[in-house]
Amino acid sequence: MSTDSDSDATDELARDRLIDLAGEFYDQFAAGNVPAMEIPTRTKSNIVFDEDKDVWVYGDRTSTRSANSVRGAQKLLKAIYTIDFLAEQLDQDRSSTLRELYYLSESWDEERAQFSDQDESNQLVEDLEIVSEVTREDFHMRPEESGATIMGPLYLREQTRRGEREIHCQEDVGEGGYQIPNNPDTIEFLDHDADFVLCVETGGMRDRLVENGFDEEYSVIVVHLKGQPARATRRITRRLNDELDLPVVVFCDGDPWSYRIYASVAYGSIKSAHLSEYLATPTAKYIGIQPEDIVTYDLPTDPLSDSDINALESELDDPRFRDDYWTEQIELQLEIGKKAEQQALASRGLDFVTDTYLPERLTEMGVI
Amino acid sequence: MSTDSDSDATDELARDRLIDLAGEFYDQFAAGNVPAMEIPTRTKSNIVFDEDKDVWVYGDRTSTRSANSVRGAQKLLKAIYTIDFLAEQLDQDRSSTLRELYYLSESWDEERAQFSDQDESNQLVEDLEIVSEVTREDFHMRPEESGATIMGPLYLREQTRRGEREIHCQEDVGEGGYQIPNNPDTIEFLDHDADFVLCVETGGMRDRLVENGFDEEYSVIVVHLKGQPARATRRITRRLNDELDLPVVVFCDGDPWSYRIYASVAYGSIKSAHLSEYLATPTAKYIGIQPEDIVTYDLPTDPLSDSDINALESELDDPRFRDDYWTEQIELQLEIGKKAEQQALASRGLDFVTDTYLPERLTEMGVI
Repeated sequence: MSTDSDSDATDELARDRLIDLAGEFYDQFAAGNVPAMEIPTRTKSNIVFDEDKDVWVYGDRTSTRSANSVRGAQKLLKAIYTIDFLAEQLDQDRSSTLRELYYLSESWDEERAQFSDQDESNQLVEDLEIVSEVTREDFHMRPEESGATIMGPLYLREQTRRGEREIHCQEDVGEGGYQIPNNPDTIEFLDHDADFVLCVETGGMRDRLVENGFDEEYSVIVVHLKGQPARATRRITRRLNDELDLPVVVFCDGDPWSYRIYASVAYGSIKSAHLSEYLATPTAKYIGIQPEDIVTYDLPTDPLSDSDINALESELDDPRFRDDYWTEQIELQLEIGKKAEQQALASRGLDFVTDTYLPERLTEMGVI
Repeated sequence: MSTDSDSDATDELARDRLIDLAGEFYDQFAAGNVPAMEIPTRTKSNIVFDEDKDVWVYGDRTSTRSANSVRGAQKLLKAIYTIDFLAEQLDQDRSSTLRELYYLSESWDEERAQFSDQDESNQLVEDLEIVSEVTREDFHMRPEESGATIMGPLYLREQTRRGEREIHCQEDVGEGGYQIPNNPDTIEFLDHDADFVLCVETGGMRDRLVENGFDEEYSVIVVHLKGQPARATRRITRRLNDELDLPVVVFCDGDPWSYRIYASVAYGSIKSAHLSEYLATPTAKYIGIQPEDIVTYDLPTDPLSDSDINALESELDDPRFRDDYWTEQIELQLEIGKKAEQQALASRGLDFVTDTYLPERLTEMGVI
């Protein structure tokens, strides 16, 4: 939910958190200590399942960014300049992309505060997200990647720079659907007539569902993931689940890369486990293509490549996939040595997916 | 322009052309000849500039697909099965993706008509486009790649499967803009208040222009290219130029890959020169980033890589780039050995692009 005054309050809070952070460095200096910033270690071995919040978060291991070396001192200098820039950006109600921040640093008077490459500025913004507990979107940092589209019985209000827009995601949009904005927290859900949310990996399958009227017949909000989903896409999926209490199912190709797409929707990514609560939808279920479906529906397949096999083995080793369902499916896939795309269902006819496959799977899963 | 009866007529024409093609094979058989299909050779050496139509098209060299070998006969068999499928699809007002066609062929009774990989079915559909002179969109074959978005003073009517939608591309859309449908010929332009069209390569820059209100201040329709533009994006750009008589300028990164993006908008691609008249906007001008701008505006740069240098040299050799402007710019770039991204303009401040760079370039080019 986001009204004008709400978004002002969010901006104010983000700005305060940033300035507090700068204040902490100041206090460390004043107390005669070497300023430092402590950050959770961001590796697979340091993510743990938070039973309360039902999401994967960082564990106890931390790394320290300290000014006790020239390199460390420069990192904190860059942090201060970035905080200054972000605080001003929030004050003026402007926004910018991560890439613009990198280039903008070239205009800073203190040359040693300038970023040497974009990885450095990206990493710093992530560090600031973690320590300030404010998301990048609330710093008004836009991603390069745009969100995907929505089609379904959902009526929403989006707060744009040009005023409010009320849009029904079936009646007021073209065949292409409603384009998710970079920051979906500018959206307020007004009304809906949906029974569940179906996230779809490929554009071809998204278009098939829309052409076949699946969103109308089954009262479903179809969210196009467009491959590995952007943060905006994951955020709105989480909000649809959270605020409208709608079950979420994820429909991808049947290969290890697609299981990672599902994982990024359901569990969040390792790189941004600090955002799991904001981006992940822990109750999201995987509908298919399951390795089991390859057998059951006798789908056209491709053989697993060496990199597919490695990826599957690495998933068996990933805490997020460590349950009976995934172990069984992944082991089955390694055994049959095959993968299948979601559009392979077309080998049974163009309507097979909407008339047979999805209804059968949704019934099995208890969604319909 | 596309009303219900228009689109029925288009479907009818596409279907007739396909059936005529099958009829030709029949006549060749009946006359005791080996059936064959002649196709223009689709290489860089066989594209020529058509002075009348002002676009690059295929030259006189042709290749023949003939049934005089087992392989050739199978190709024609696959063509016949595909024609049958497409004619039925048009009859039923259905559509499908290229990938679905590939998988669907697995359900055909004659095993020898099935495609062995997707390259084969893609290639066949392109061949059919060329010989029938009907575009893939008019066969109701959807691309996998979706079109990008539009933001600007344009009021349009889209014919969707669910009825007509009238949408103003500033007032009726969110911050993300209007999502271009897969087949933009379902769109009718109702009204506009635009002076020109600005096609933008990156999402970050597209968002910058929208945030800064550039589309409102300069009455411009901002089309997001999203990297190498989809056919739908190129088609709608062509129609905006053609039907509304609006000048088109293209705004990309300053590197050889981005010049190719410009070329695909302005000249069409070598692979689909049979569609140049439908997809290309020959009067589209390149606004930047020009190699010259790197010098003039002292932009942050990256050194050219070996593959950049090879690509620039190959462009010097490309008939579509063979004019004074491009020769000068590409030679300058090889000399300075540098490239710059469009977002590098942020090194002069977030408003530099909309307050200074674009107005200066548009004035130089005589667009404003």
